[in-house]
Formats: sequence, C-alpha cells, structure tokens
Amino acid sequence: MRFKKVAIIGVGLIGGSLGMAIKSRRLAEVITGVTCHRSTLILAKKHNALDRSTLDSCKAVKDADLVIIATPIFRIVKIAKQIVPHLKSGCIVTDVGSVKGVIVREIEKMARIRRKEIYFVGGHPMAGSEKSGVSFAKSDLFKNTVCFLTSTPRTDQGALNKVKNLWGKIGAVTEIVSPQKHDRIVAYISHLPHLLAYNLLMVTPPQYYRYAAGSFLDMTRIVSSDPQLWQDVCRMNSREIDRLLREHSISLNEIKGLIASGRFKKLLNLFARAKSRRDAQ
Amino acid sequence: MRFKKVAIIGVGLIGGSLGMAIKSRRLAEVITGVTCHRSTLILAKKHNALDRSTLDSCKAVKDADLVIIATPIFRIVKIAKQIVPHLKSGCIVTDVGSVKGVIVREIEKMARIRRKEIYFVGGHPMAGSEKSGVSFAKSDLFKNTVCFLTSTPRTDQGALNKVKNLWGKIGAVTEIVSPQKHDRIVAYISHLPHLLAYNLLMVTPPQYYRYAAGSFLDMTRIVSSDPQLWQDVCRMNSREIDRLLREHSISLNEIKGLIASGRFKKLLNLFARAKSRRDAQ
Repeated sequence: MRFKKVAIIGVGLIGGSLGMAIKSRRLAEVITGVTCHRSTLILAKKHNALDRSTLDSCKAVKDADLVIIATPIFRIVKIAKQIVPHLKSGCIVTDVGSVKGVIVREIEKMARIRRKEIYFVGGHPMAGSEKSGVSFAKSDLFKNTVCFLTSTPRTDQGALNKVKNLWGKIGAVTEIVSPQKHDRIVAYISHLPHLLAYNLLMVTPPQYYRYAAGSFLDMTRIVSSDPQLWQDVCRMNSREIDRLLREHSISLNEIKGLIASGRFKKLLNLFARAKSRRDAQ
Repeated sequence: MRFKKVAIIGVGLIGGSLGMAIKSRRLAEVITGVTCHRSTLILAKKHNALDRSTLDSCKAVKDADLVIIATPIFRIVKIAKQIVPHLKSGCIVTDVGSVKGVIVREIEKMARIRRKEIYFVGGHPMAGSEKSGVSFAKSDLFKNTVCFLTSTPRTDQGALNKVKNLWGKIGAVTEIVSPQKHDRIVAYISHLPHLLAYNLLMVTPPQYYRYAAGSFLDMTRIVSSDPQLWQDVCRMNSREIDRLLREHSISLNEIKGLIASGRFKKLLNLFARAKSRRDAQ
C-alpha cells in the first residue's frame, strides 16, 4: 500500500521525522510539507523530509490521500477546520497530538467527517524528547515506539487500518484505544511525570542545583521541553490531570505518614514492591 | 601527602571505587578492605581495589592512618563504636553515608573522638547510581562529582584538610557544610526525587508501564535502587524529608489550582521559569 500524495502540516521533530520515515521507505509518491516559516521548509528539505513545500495549508492538502497534522496541539482543531473544505473525497486526516479527547471530539463534529466524505483517525506517537524542531528529526524516530490510534463509534475501520499500516511500516507498535483511555494513560506516564519534574525544579533552591547527582538531573531533564506545549497539554487534558494529581497526593501522603509515624517496615515493603515492578520492565 | 595504611570497611560500589581510585593514584602504601562476605573480598581484589583483606574490622583498622566506613548507612555508627577502641592515636575516621546529621552527632559523642585522640570527618560523595556492589566499581567514579564533607565545632581542621585533599586527588569537588545543611540539600536533590519516583511508579497501573516513553522511564530508573538503603535514608533524615514533602505538596497544589481554575497564563509563566532555570544548568 502506497499513498499517492501525503501532506504534512507542521514539520517539526515529529512531522519532519514522519516525512523522513515515509520518504526513506517510499510509502508515498509525493510528500508536501507546510509550515509557518519558509526557513523551516528549507531545513526540512535539507533533511530530505519533503518533496514539495508551501506556506499554505489549503493548497498543500489539495488532492492529498492522507493529511497528517503535526502542529502544536492547540492548533490542530483550527487547522482541521481550515483544510476540511479543500480535501478530496475519501481523504484520510490524522494527527499526532499528545491529547486526544478534545481533539477527536471537535474534529468528529465537522460536517464532511460526519457525512463520511473524509475520514479522521486520531494518532499519538510516544516519541520525541525535550528537544524540538526539524533539526532533531530522524527517519527512525518511531522505531519500536508505541503509537496510539483512537477508535470511536464514528471511526472508519478502513481508514484506521491504513493509518495503522503506515505506522507499522515505519517501525511503530500501534495501540488502538478510545480517546478517553488514551488521555488517562498519558496522564500517568507522561503528564504527571512532567508536572512532578516542574514542581521538583521549582521547590529546589537554585543554589543547590550544582550538587545534583543523577536522580535530580534525570527527573528534571524534561523541564527543558517547550513550556507552551505543556501549558496546552494541561489545558486540554485538565480533567485527567486533576484527578491524577489528587491520586498522587493521597498516595504520597501515605508515604509521608509512614515516615512520620516510624512505620519503616511498611515503607521498606513499599520500596521493595516498587523496585520489583520497575525491575520487571 | 600519602597515607601509610588506609582501611576501607564495606567494599561495595563506593568503597570499591575508593579503593581503586586510591590505589591507582598511589595515595596509600597499603589498603586493607573489610566486608561481611569473603566472596566480596575476592571480587574486590580482582578489581584491584585492595592490597589486603579481612572479615574482621577491628583487626583491619590496627595501625591505620585513615579509616573509611563505606557500609550501608544504618551500620556506620555501630561500626564506628566497634573500631574506635582499636584505632591508633591520630587516626582519621571518615564515612560516605548519604545522611550526615544523625551519624556525625552519634560519632562525635564517642569518648576518644571527644578527647581528640582520633578524628572524625563526615563525608558523602554524590556518586553512585541505582546499581550497587563492587562489580560496578571504577576508579574514576568520583571524577567531577561533588563530595560533601562536614564541619562542626568539634571538627579538627587538620583532619578535615587531609580528607579534603584525598577527595580532591581522586577528582571530586569537595564542599564543606554543616551536617544539618547537608541533610537539607540532599533532601531536595536526592531524597525527594526518590520518593517521587517510588510514588509515581506505585500510582501508575502496571499495565500502562509498557507505553512509557522517556520521561516515565527516566524518572523511575532510581526505583531500582536498594530498598533497604532508602528505608534507612528516610529513617535517618525523616525531619528534613517530612518538611520537604509538605513543601512539595503545597507547591504542587498551587499548580493543581492553576489548572483547575483555568489560569493557564500563570501556568505557562511557571513552566517557562522552570525551563530557563533548567537550561542554565
């Protein structure tokens, strides 16, 4: 299976790596990339992530079989609204946003998607790092990583399969979940860790940073991520994050109670249980 | 400056690396190592961490100029009590325990140390990892790491300088602090991160672990550390940890409040401030 024309809107670390991965495996006849700045497009071409480029999303998606929206998450719905009138019938639209509930709900409301003239499949590859931008892109970024794809009562199974195949061919392990379940999982394994890292960094007096050994540095590396992205994540997944912060506080308070009341045997059991879970990974 | 005889009690990752570092730089004429198990001593000799070895601490410290106690922290005071009667006058005793307040206080109470027949200098190199045991030891483990040394009204400056010189010669950057300040610093940069990591791992449903990307794995790597060590740390630094857990909760609650009440601009400011602090490291 090969796409005739793929349009990638937003050519940063993820969009750029997708372009490189698709091109290097010849999974599309032509890839058109869209960004806000011409300089990014030049860089993306240098990285061999694109065949063609433009600053105009509506022009870029004309005749595309597959459109991948890889912009910052707060722009995804807006861009979908802009491009949907310009898509050919049968076109598949997907995204790579790290929050799915709000995005999938809003996009599935759109008339052409409701009428099944075009198809939407929500996606989220668990790749990337605190680095951003196409200059860090690489064609094997998704190798052996998990890529979530969403399935809802409105999802077209044919379209889902095509998107699933594409991710499989570039090395990712796809996992099909509801948008709600996705947002719960990533709250645990990504959003909570980030908030803990921010908080750890902010409570620690800066004059102590230079004493930090591995644990502190490992835990706070992700604080170098793009602050705007994380503000958006908190806004768009606020309910799950709120619930999980409460769960974290209750659990940490139990640990605090064990220490304060000298129940160190229970504490040891807890640490040992955690270690055996972690070592099993 | 060179020591005639150095005794290292406890030849694990830290004690073993110290032996290797001292030997490779010829900072002692002879190094005697003590452990509980003969098998560890054989391994330590293989690693070239020792010249001589014994299972008997009291015998090992005879005629030593410098004794380094590198056992698990809960045994340090007990071992000091055992060996002190067997030390020659003028001997310097130091340790590598990751908590200092309790240890320094208890050891400074001992009669021969009070009479300045022998000297105690508390130490704590910020090296090591979730790995333990002499098989992970290496002679450059301390290169460019911080090593805390404690100073109290009872500390002998000559002894402090000798211990400081030794750490400097094996590549560490020494930092002289009070035991109380040490315990506060490490609560921030090591003990809180560990407790957050344990808690993060325990609240996360194990069936989600396999989706974890870098942030979760980075943050929970330290959970593989020795649970007994961390129980001891919590017990021996309980006051600072309790205070800091409270500070963490208050601060995290503020973040929770910003999210719940939709004050996302303030959240963005906080994330940006954290990023600029982290990037400056």
